[in-house]
Amino acid sequence: MSTPLLEQLIDALKVLPGVGAKSAQRMAYHLLERQRDGGRRLAEVLAQAMAQIDHCQRCRDFSETPLCALCASPSRDRHLLCVVETPADRLAIEQATGFRGLYFVLQGRLSPLDGIGPRELGLDLLAQRLEEGEVHELIVATNPTVEGEATAHYLAQLARARGVRPTRLAHGVPLGGELEYVDRGTLSHAFGGRVEIRE
Amino acid sequence: MSTPLLEQLIDALKVLPGVGAKSAQRMAYHLLERQRDGGRRLAEVLAQAMAQIDHCQRCRDFSETPLCALCASPSRDRHLLCVVETPADRLAIEQATGFRGLYFVLQGRLSPLDGIGPRELGLDLLAQRLEEGEVHELIVATNPTVEGEATAHYLAQLARARGVRPTRLAHGVPLGGELEYVDRGTLSHAFGGRVEIRE
Ligand SMILES: [Zn+2]
Ligand SMILES: [Zn+2]
Repeated sequence: MSTPLLEQLIDALKVLPGVGAKSAQRMAYHLLERQRDGGRRLAEVLAQAMAQIDHCQRCRDFSETPLCALCASPSRDRHLLCVVETPADRLAIEQATGFRGLYFVLQGRLSPLDGIGPRELGLDLLAQRLEEGEVHELIVATNPTVEGEATAHYLAQLARARGVRPTRLAHGVPLGGELEYVDRGTLSHAFGGRVEIRE
Repeated sequence: MSTPLLEQLIDALKVLPGVGAKSAQRMAYHLLERQRDGGRRLAEVLAQAMAQIDHCQRCRDFSETPLCALCASPSRDRHLLCVVETPADRLAIEQATGFRGLYFVLQGRLSPLDGIGPRELGLDLLAQRLEEGEVHELIVATNPTVEGEATAHYLAQLARARGVRPTRLAHGVPLGGELEYVDRGTLSHAFGGRVEIRE
């Protein structure tokens, strides 16, 4: 390689998901040849985002402020709380459905073997919130995978123990898939047809 | 979107080749969730690269210094000069073949309709170099596309007019393809079997 800095750039680009040595090289050359401004802008925004984006204190979604815009909004229905695994899932539901309630983002799912328990998912925070009595329905929108279902079961029990009605998305979400990649129509349908979680 | 900065990051990531809205979102979440350090490092190296990487004054390849490491190296054979379209092509040849000469990077190919003529490709610089008399053979390794072939023809004439022998890569490089994506074996074979360009 004729320039160590270019080599470093190609190496640094490999942190991006799905980017191997060959595409990292292609990206670096593309930026240098045709997108210097875009590259500079990316560097700037990326540095800012890594430094300033943290988690919302109330819902654990990403936020630049202690309370995210959704949690701070006075126009959302505080009786409905939708629990999702990731910010991407929250975004998918927000874009596909007409949901006007609030969210709680687990930032993961129960996975004892990986050391991810209730505490890592902020479930103490969630339990406390359910005890406040404002939430009437807990919509459990975890992924339809084995770990997601186990998490849903746990969440349903957590809700019931606090007099909150747990519901889950209607069947229609394909089993074994990732919520984030479900098409909007299916997701909207499943969300609208959510059913109560029975013991 | 709950955070404008995250929205900006997703938007900025779309300057990368082959990255649309969905993969940009996936990349942003991945960096925020699992690769903060890698993201910070990428931001830093990217800013440096965009600011400091320019073109080598002699071969037009990317370089952080006025003269790139290859051009400055005393151990390369100054009688052999290989002309390529892009830095990626130069890298592919350097990695696949045992070539020990020097390179000249066009950073493009002749394309009159796009306003890319001899001047834009630095061919005045190349002509001047050939006139110095040090180069005995000009290995034309442009891509086997219509524009690449036209460029090769032009380069061969330029060399001949200055008493330099023009050669091209042996057949074996698939027609209509991009040199950068040719497998190493084929490329090495084609490079070793290069033939003289006849009038
Ligand atoms: Zn929030
Ligand atoms: Zn050079």
